[in-house]
Amino acid sequence: MVLPCVDRSSHEPIYMQIVRQLRRLIEDETLSEGEPLPSSRGMAERLGVNRSTVYRAYQELWALGYLESRPGSYTTVRCPPSAGGGDGGRTAGVLEWDRMTSPGGRDIHRSYLAYTPEAPFDNPPEPVNLSQLDLDPRVFPVTELRRACDRALGSTGGRALQYAAAQGDPDLRSFIAERARTHGMEVRPEEVLITNGSQQAIDLVLRVLTEAGQTVALEAPTYAAVIPLMQLHQLRAAGVPMRRDGLDLDDLERIIVERSPALLYTIPNFQNPTGITTSQEHRENLLTLCERFRLPLVEDGFEEEMKYFGKVAQPIKAMDSDKVVVYLGTFSKVLFPGLRIGFVMADAECIERLTAVKRFTDLSASNLIQIALNDFCRRGCYERHIRRMHRVFRKRMLAALAAAKEHFPTQHVSWTEPAGGYLIWVSVPGRKVDDARFEEVCRRHRVVVSPGRYYYAESPAEQQFRISISMLDEDEIREGFARLGAALHEFCDAG
Amino acid sequence: MVLPCVDRSSHEPIYMQIVRQLRRLIEDETLSEGEPLPSSRGMAERLGVNRSTVYRAYQELWALGYLESRPGSYTTVRCPPSAGGGDGGRTAGVLEWDRMTSPGGRDIHRSYLAYTPEAPFDNPPEPVNLSQLDLDPRVFPVTELRRACDRALGSTGGRALQYAAAQGDPDLRSFIAERARTHGMEVRPEEVLITNGSQQAIDLVLRVLTEAGQTVALEAPTYAAVIPLMQLHQLRAAGVPMRRDGLDLDDLERIIVERSPALLYTIPNFQNPTGITTSQEHRENLLTLCERFRLPLVEDGFEEEMKYFGKVAQPIKAMDSDKVVVYLGTFSKVLFPGLRIGFVMADAECIERLTAVKRFTDLSASNLIQIALNDFCRRGCYERHIRRMHRVFRKRMLAALAAAKEHFPTQHVSWTEPAGGYLIWVSVPGRKVDDARFEEVCRRHRVVVSPGRYYYAESPAEQQFRISISMLDEDEIREGFARLGAALHEFCDAG
Repeated sequence: MVLPCVDRSSHEPIYMQIVRQLRRLIEDETLSEGEPLPSSRGMAERLGVNRSTVYRAYQELWALGYLESRPGSYTTVRCPPSAGGGDGGRTAGVLEWDRMTSPGGRDIHRSYLAYTPEAPFDNPPEPVNLSQLDLDPRVFPVTELRRACDRALGSTGGRALQYAAAQGDPDLRSFIAERARTHGMEVRPEEVLITNGSQQAIDLVLRVLTEAGQTVALEAPTYAAVIPLMQLHQLRAAGVPMRRDGLDLDDLERIIVERSPALLYTIPNFQNPTGITTSQEHRENLLTLCERFRLPLVEDGFEEEMKYFGKVAQPIKAMDSDKVVVYLGTFSKVLFPGLRIGFVMADAECIERLTAVKRFTDLSASNLIQIALNDFCRRGCYERHIRRMHRVFRKRMLAALAAAKEHFPTQHVSWTEPAGGYLIWVSVPGRKVDDARFEEVCRRHRVVVSPGRYYYAESPAEQQFRISISMLDEDEIREGFARLGAALHEFCDAG
Repeated sequence: MVLPCVDRSSHEPIYMQIVRQLRRLIEDETLSEGEPLPSSRGMAERLGVNRSTVYRAYQELWALGYLESRPGSYTTVRCPPSAGGGDGGRTAGVLEWDRMTSPGGRDIHRSYLAYTPEAPFDNPPEPVNLSQLDLDPRVFPVTELRRACDRALGSTGGRALQYAAAQGDPDLRSFIAERARTHGMEVRPEEVLITNGSQQAIDLVLRVLTEAGQTVALEAPTYAAVIPLMQLHQLRAAGVPMRRDGLDLDDLERIIVERSPALLYTIPNFQNPTGITTSQEHRENLLTLCERFRLPLVEDGFEEEMKYFGKVAQPIKAMDSDKVVVYLGTFSKVLFPGLRIGFVMADAECIERLTAVKRFTDLSASNLIQIALNDFCRRGCYERHIRRMHRVFRKRMLAALAAAKEHFPTQHVSWTEPAGGYLIWVSVPGRKVDDARFEEVCRRHRVVVSPGRYYYAESPAEQQFRISISMLDEDEIREGFARLGAALHEFCDAG
């Protein structure tokens, strides 16, 4: 039988490649009705892929009507009703979607295709992934959440499955406001809006506070996924260079004066991607500048809770007596990314406008998730979990910093030493960017990091990359840093 | 010294109660600067609580700047910088949010404030609410979903709480594609995008396929919450009048020729608000028209599953060989609104562009919810539930139509007889709109309906309103229709 051919360098998941190719073989009748397929184990061996990959492909083909499967028998080929018609549902259609797409939609689509933070790495041995900022599922307090969900569907039952308020569950908003107070922020529940993660919070803020053609000031480098949003909204990004102590305030002032940005987007704690935390003095000066120029200061506190080394300054929002700060927070980076719960805290006038957009663009966050999360938090599970995360990641970050000192070529590279969070930023000062070669070397050493180019609206000036330890334990970190060190030695020595 | 007072029956954690009360005592200067506090042990004994609770409260007060703590010395009261100011955080702020808001944001905010589908009715006796299109929680299959959630958090645990794919869970997409086949639509999983309800689906389609200033064709009347979206996107709405058999095709053709709309938004089944279902012939003519003019046809199948009277034509998407149809669906109108799961089915090229926007505007739908919902559906619970819903609402709708015939002043009003769904549209032909009076009469008869003006981008020509039976059982329906009949008699007779 003709076998599918697996391309490991493709963006397309392997199971999808198998699905696509087997479908074509069935549709062009290379494989005919009733023909038995190899078992998933047999096919996996022949293709040199994981058995579960083949299993998933067969499942999908079955769902699509291309396979017949009976207990105790071979899986056989089936010619689905539509395939006989000859077009197999693959006619091109009369619309040219790209031509019909809005300018912002077109730009973000291009970014989407180019943005593949994790290089495919399916063949063994497993690489160490220092790229993903997903959370290590081994630290998830799953059991407590499971109980909270069960309670949410037990006691309130119907209510948890009914529509929620657009602004979010009032009890959860109260909890968020109370919790904000522990970080020095005086926020009332009516100044809180629940969003689908902080990604939606950023989008809502841009929808309300910007118009196409305006400028937005942000750090260079900054959070990668905010740059495509600039394109979608057809905004100009004015990058403010990051220094050792945060964004350059003189540069920011110059940008404000010359380009009148609609807002500033900044990450003062454990900045993504640099891991830099700004000082109290820097925060005060930044706030004063924004107040002076009446510039909304969008503070992304995505890892506010992850201060595990010593004392860290309070959020800028804590000093916001003039109410120019729009604060974004999330549960994704300390608890569960899969819940999709983030929030905005700002002046009630601003929150009401954001809520109006939320109301008509997706009605509300899931009621069930909000009720379960509130229950989880109110029982002290959130607090306990945060304390555990501090213990766990303090040790992990110490292991990472020690491993960097041990393995990195200190004469060639420099890196940040974060006060918390998960991120370390590495620069090869004076070295021109050559990501193709750098990634090739890393690939050979079976380690993945995030190249610096993802984090700049324009191009970075020198070779840089981001390390995330959010998915790894200490042994994995040590192994990853050893491999990365070897890769860096090779990359720098050959320079 | 004045002690805090602990309430063990409160939701508020005890340490937060202590924090809140001590803060108030410090802010109103009952406790003054420099005053020593009891040790955490001493305070714990006096309050009869755990020492660690007091310790935690003190920690928090210290973080908030309300306590001073030095090694080997008493903890003393500190007046934090902001507390002395006396404003209590209620200053107005320096930004004029309305002036800073984008034109679309401003318009949708006004609509948000004006849009109050449920008139407040706080004093007894309870009115009958024929306005809400929420689902009756008494028919929710809560137990089955509870088990599905429990399984999702049991077996896959970590995975359900990790980030999901932007396009949505592949298994759930397969289920949706399979289910689409039962309605005659040949859709592959890669042609499906999971959204936060169909509201987000509409927003995504507008983000990708329209630009500010363009025209969108839609039915007049149409789904109320789509009209504010036109404002947010700064689009012009071209209303195509609804006839007995759906939108007027001649009018649509004229609009296409004269105004080149970017797309058509239509609801062929149990249209919201009129309840009208179009015929096979109307669907074919409409599709042909859109194909001829290369006009994307956005088909909102929000109640596709609720065909409980006889045979109903298949969705337009089922005939879509030229792939001009973008189909929107949702689980909110047959299952659980609180899950916030809807979907788009369209040409893969179009889906990819919609996914790009979804990816960067809120990452993905909740993984936990998607996995639980897929589990629920795969076990046959969805099918079983749909069958039950058909039985339940067939009877309820028959009761509604019988009650209308019995109680409404047939010489003055006409109404639609839907083939399924939850909606009936009532007109008082020739009667000028006077919602203030109409609502006043309804209020006196303790019944609520949705006035017609919510469903038009422009003003309606005559007195109309929408009835929804989605929240009520047969007795409640009979009672509501009797009251509404009395109100209509009074309103029409006084005309």
